[in-house]
Amino acid sequence: MSRPKALSGFPELTPEQRIVEQQVLDRLREVFELHGFASVETRAVEPLGTLAKQGEIDKEVYAVQRVAAEPGSAADLGLHFDLTVPFARYVLEHAHQLAFPFRRYQVQKVWRGERPQEGRYREFTQADVDIVNPGALPAHFDVELPMVTLAALERLHVDLALPPVLMRVNNRRLAQGFYAGLGIEDTVAVLRQVDKLDKIGPDRVAALLVDEVGVTPAQAQACVRLATISSADASFVDRVRALGVSDPMLDEGLELLADVVTTASAYVPGRLVADLKIARGLDYYTGTVYETELVGHESMGSISSGGRYDSLASDGKTTYPGVGLSIGVTRLLVPLLGRGVLRATRSVPTAVVVALTTEDQRPAANAVAARLRERGIPTEVAPEAAKFGRQIRYADRRGIPFVWFGAGEGETDEVKDIRSGDQTPADPATWEPPAEDLHPRVVAGG
Amino acid sequence: MSRPKALSGFPELTPEQRIVEQQVLDRLREVFELHGFASVETRAVEPLGTLAKQGEIDKEVYAVQRVAAEPGSAADLGLHFDLTVPFARYVLEHAHQLAFPFRRYQVQKVWRGERPQEGRYREFTQADVDIVNPGALPAHFDVELPMVTLAALERLHVDLALPPVLMRVNNRRLAQGFYAGLGIEDTVAVLRQVDKLDKIGPDRVAALLVDEVGVTPAQAQACVRLATISSADASFVDRVRALGVSDPMLDEGLELLADVVTTASAYVPGRLVADLKIARGLDYYTGTVYETELVGHESMGSISSGGRYDSLASDGKTTYPGVGLSIGVTRLLVPLLGRGVLRATRSVPTAVVVALTTEDQRPAANAVAARLRERGIPTEVAPEAAKFGRQIRYADRRGIPFVWFGAGEGETDEVKDIRSGDQTPADPATWEPPAEDLHPRVVAGG
Repeated sequence: MSRPKALSGFPELTPEQRIVEQQVLDRLREVFELHGFASVETRAVEPLGTLAKQGEIDKEVYAVQRVAAEPGSAADLGLHFDLTVPFARYVLEHAHQLAFPFRRYQVQKVWRGERPQEGRYREFTQADVDIVNPGALPAHFDVELPMVTLAALERLHVDLALPPVLMRVNNRRLAQGFYAGLGIEDTVAVLRQVDKLDKIGPDRVAALLVDEVGVTPAQAQACVRLATISSADASFVDRVRALGVSDPMLDEGLELLADVVTTASAYVPGRLVADLKIARGLDYYTGTVYETELVGHESMGSISSGGRYDSLASDGKTTYPGVGLSIGVTRLLVPLLGRGVLRATRSVPTAVVVALTTEDQRPAANAVAARLRERGIPTEVAPEAAKFGRQIRYADRRGIPFVWFGAGEGETDEVKDIRSGDQTPADPATWEPPAEDLHPRVVAGG
Repeated sequence: MSRPKALSGFPELTPEQRIVEQQVLDRLREVFELHGFASVETRAVEPLGTLAKQGEIDKEVYAVQRVAAEPGSAADLGLHFDLTVPFARYVLEHAHQLAFPFRRYQVQKVWRGERPQEGRYREFTQADVDIVNPGALPAHFDVELPMVTLAALERLHVDLALPPVLMRVNNRRLAQGFYAGLGIEDTVAVLRQVDKLDKIGPDRVAALLVDEVGVTPAQAQACVRLATISSADASFVDRVRALGVSDPMLDEGLELLADVVTTASAYVPGRLVADLKIARGLDYYTGTVYETELVGHESMGSISSGGRYDSLASDGKTTYPGVGLSIGVTRLLVPLLGRGVLRATRSVPTAVVVALTTEDQRPAANAVAARLRERGIPTEVAPEAAKFGRQIRYADRRGIPFVWFGAGEGETDEVKDIRSGDQTPADPATWEPPAEDLHPRVVAGG
């Protein structure tokens, strides 16, 4: 075959980029597990009926069918397009094997048959955290889940040089209670207009509320004022109160949102604001909603979103409310890698190449490599016996910092740091590279 | 919906079983990286034309098509059925970004539209290691690749209580040279009969060689005698020589296979034998071939196989020979988990649950948890304020070893080992669980 072409919408990383992705996934897993979340993987396929129930997303599903199936027979399976629908099915199917409340994280690829465009992928990796419980799920989990997600994203910022994030949080019951207190019943219709605030501005939104939803100009003004409130601490509560609306559901929403903001300011300072215009997934979430932007890269859109859903899964007898967030790993990383914001210090795990001047040395070189590996030092033996310069070039092309010389030559072995040129005597039983050279590191690019 | 049913052939693990799988995958990754292999992931789909080229496997491919595609239009993508075909395509597509010889490992799910049966899966995880190089690939890589694979499998045995393995190795050039030395040209026809040795015995194979392949009875006897030779050291060479056949290709094969056996006996003693009846993938491999059984579980079949392929990939100008092995992670683990051979010491990552007697304590409990997590101790806060017994039960159901009491109560905190019942004063800034309790461990079941 001639050189294959890339498939649009199916990004593939180079080995160096993959090292960045691996370290990102490692940090996410570490933080999720520190918070007691257990890993789950679900099969890649679900019955098309389960996937199609989600309504709108229907057209984006990839159907899967054996090539050897009867011609003309209908496909009955599809690739999952998110990790929430499969998780809901997993909870119902395996409920008898799970301990509730069930805390799970799930890192897998998902597929959507979208028309490819900038920032849209047909195959991408998501990292989800959710808690579900049969019957009722206490409100404090609405506070915990964004903390876990922010702790994970903060770890990427501190350890791996990713930009910091800002999470915006709102509560649908707060809005619903406020509108009810104003005498407006159709929450969804109002939110649909309020959602346009950033695009068309407060005046146009107020006009649309009057013209399309049929509220009074005074009601419309109050709705717009509510939506423009945002704060990094609990001061938003007084600003909402100052609008003079009262309702029990509003109180409940204010209290919960204040708890989220207050807890966040202690746990991950500066990374979360209450923002009362956030609407997200109008028909899906039932309480707190979250979205997250990457500071300095806001045009990338939300890189982590989620919320509370009061009926994630139901088997007819038991309903499982849940709350959770999803981090768009591919959506986050591919643009940052493409823009050179992040890179790995080398393209291979190898820290040391053991050089050979003749093939006869290979067993001795293998023995040196084995001793280094026993102590956790990633080591390769040179692919061929070659002169000094060629061995150095082999390491240099891959960013491998050290070349080992003299294995099996009966004299003292030596190891060369090819960056500084320093060459020193070394014993394979004791020599260690500096800790920062042991594994490739992820650093800011440029 | 009512409780969903499992899909046959798509195994899903419980959270506890998934901990076993994660630790298996962690160990494989660690060993591959210690040997300098870089991780690659390829997209899940390939053009059907690329997949169909592999001939026989054709019927087992899952085709993928957007639900919204034109009715009646033909699918042009399929899910990959192994990691070798996608890797060959990746090498051709990204050759300009790779450094050769290119050492890669790849751990991903693959899909086959097979009729499900015992030990066959429609979705399963493989872990592959391969080295490829444009033009020519030195023979010492035929020795290195089984060493890496055996080191990885040995790590699973030593660290995670999996059974030990036995790898059987042969060389197609050895057989081809031997047959040529006997005056037989159709190597494939002979191997096809020799492959039946274990099933039908030497006499029937010899008869088939005469009847079906048309060799003389003396030639048939020599072929059968060759196939019955096996040894854990290089002594097989003398036994082959004693058959009195000589040929340059035979010499070459003997030398390489002796090198594999000798190196293995030093690097991973007792885990590899030369076995001259191993045929594997008749039309595919061109040199050394490997297959591996789990000692005590031989009926599971080969759990790691591979070989040398002299034309893994070609873009018309450049050909890339390669050598590699694949570990069938699902094929290996699902039966062992099902038989209870392996289990995890708990079903969650959590080492400590911080108990609450009132909801007012939650912020103080969160603070204790945060301090423990800062020091790498996986910690949850109890989902609800409850009495002593209920908190213990919460931990016990999940296998969590420690429960923390007294957070924010103004007195000294205490931590209880719920297995022994020991309760001792503890400071969240300094207390540590015993190292073996920090993370779930994988242990022999039963």
